[in-house]
Amino acid sequence: MTTILKLGGSVITEKDAPETVDREALTAAADAIGAADLDDLVIVHGGGSFGHHHAEAHGVTATAGTHDAAGVYAIHDAMARLDDHVVEALQDAGVPALPVHPFSVASRDEHGETALPTGAIDRLRGEGFVPVLFGDVVVQAGAGATILSGDEIVVLLARSLGADRIGLCSGVSGVLDESGAVIDRIEDFAAVADALGESEATDVTGGMAGKVRALLDLETPASIFGPDDLAAFLAGEDPGTLIE
Amino acid sequence: MTTILKLGGSVITEKDAPETVDREALTAAADAIGAADLDDLVIVHGGGSFGHHHAEAHGVTATAGTHDAAGVYAIHDAMARLDDHVVEALQDAGVPALPVHPFSVASRDEHGETALPTGAIDRLRGEGFVPVLFGDVVVQAGAGATILSGDEIVVLLARSLGADRIGLCSGVSGVLDESGAVIDRIEDFAAVADALGESEATDVTGGMAGKVRALLDLETPASIFGPDDLAAFLAGEDPGTLIE
Repeated sequence: MTTILKLGGSVITEKDAPETVDREALTAAADAIGAADLDDLVIVHGGGSFGHHHAEAHGVTATAGTHDAAGVYAIHDAMARLDDHVVEALQDAGVPALPVHPFSVASRDEHGETALPTGAIDRLRGEGFVPVLFGDVVVQAGAGATILSGDEIVVLLARSLGADRIGLCSGVSGVLDESGAVIDRIEDFAAVADALGESEATDVTGGMAGKVRALLDLETPASIFGPDDLAAFLAGEDPGTLIE
Repeated sequence: MTTILKLGGSVITEKDAPETVDREALTAAADAIGAADLDDLVIVHGGGSFGHHHAEAHGVTATAGTHDAAGVYAIHDAMARLDDHVVEALQDAGVPALPVHPFSVASRDEHGETALPTGAIDRLRGEGFVPVLFGDVVVQAGAGATILSGDEIVVLLARSLGADRIGLCSGVSGVLDESGAVIDRIEDFAAVADALGESEATDVTGGMAGKVRALLDLETPASIFGPDDLAAFLAGEDPGTLIE
C-alpha cells in the first residue's frame, strides 16, 4: 500500500511571516505520521512563506523562468531549508524521513513536460526510508529554471509509483461548495466547476480548481482535508473531500 | 568541450578543524574558475572536515551502510552545508553554479553498482548553469545508505557525459614517485604501483592508488594537481600528473 501525503505550505508555515515554520502545526503533523507508521510512504510539502516570496522577487513562476543562478538558488535554498525543518520534525517523531531535492533530479523540456526519475526514491522506499520532496525550482529547456509545485510532484509521483492513496493536507477542510460546506466526493469537474470558480486561478502553483482537475485525471483516489483530519486519513478513512 | 573539475575536500576545508571551510583556498579556487569562464563545466567536491567525521561516527563507508535515518541525514546534511558554501563562493566569483545533491538522484544496487541519472545535470549544462555535486551518502539495496565518494562521482560523470577533460585539484601537486617528485604522466598502473604502495589503501573514499586505477580505466584524460596549478589546468595546460 503506497501512500503519497502532501503537507500544504499553508499548514506547516506561518503564511504571513517570511520563512517562519508553524512549529506547533508541523510537530502535530509529524506526530500523526509517526503514530500511523505506514509501510510505504512518500511525503511532499509546499513552500508556504519560504518559497513564494523569493519566487515572486525573481519573477519566476511555473512557466516564466530565469537564467539568473543567484535567483534560482535563492528560491531553491529557501525551500531546501524548510525541507530540513520538515525532515527533522519527522525524524523526531520516529519517521525515517530523508530529503530528496526535486531540483537535483527533475527536468522540464521546452514544452513544460516534466520528468522526475524515481530511481533513488524507489530504493529509499525499498530500504524502509520515507522520501520527503517539496515544491522547488526545476531546470527547463530554453527557460533556465521555473517552479515545480508540490501539487505537480504529487501527480507525477502518483503515476510513476502507481500509488494507492493520495492525501492532501491543506489549510481548508476540503473542497467547499458555494455555501461553504465540504463536498464529500467529486467524480467529475463539471459538477463542481461553479463552486470552484476562477477565484484561485491566479495562484501560480495551482489553486483548488487546478488541484481538482489534476487529481481527477489520476487512477489513484485522493483526499483533500485539513490538519485535524490527518490522523483519520492515515488510519485509512476518507476525511474531507474524496476525489476519484 | 566538457570539463569535470573536482575540488578535493582537503583543498577547500581545514582538514583538522571539524566543519570549517578554508575560506581563502575556496575563494581562490572560485576566482580561478570564474576567470576561466569555461563553456561547459561540472564541479564535484569532496567532504574534507565536513563529511568524514560524521561518516566515521555512524560507521558508514563505501561498503558498510546504515538504516539509521538520523545517521544518514547527519552525514548528508554536513556535506550539503559544505556544498552551499561552495555554490555561494562560486556565484560570488561570477560562476552560474547550482547545487545537485547526489543523494537525491543516485542509487546503488546490492552489488555496489551505482546509477547516477544525469537528466537534470544535462539540462542545467544546456541552460548555461554549472552543476555542483559532492561526495555524499547514497541509498543502497540491502545496506540502507553507504558513501558515494566525490572521486566515484567524477568517474561516473566522465563516462555518462563523455567528458573531454578531468581535473582533480588536490592537496598535493600530483602523483609523487618514491623520491617525492611529481610524476608527469601515467599510462599504466604497473609502472607506478611501487611508488603508490598500499599506504593510502585505508582511506575509505579511495586514496591515490584507487584514484589512479579508476582514472586509467577512463577514455578521458585526467590531471591531478595542486591548488596553485588550477588556473593553468583551466587554461588548457596539463599541470601536475597527466593520467591517460
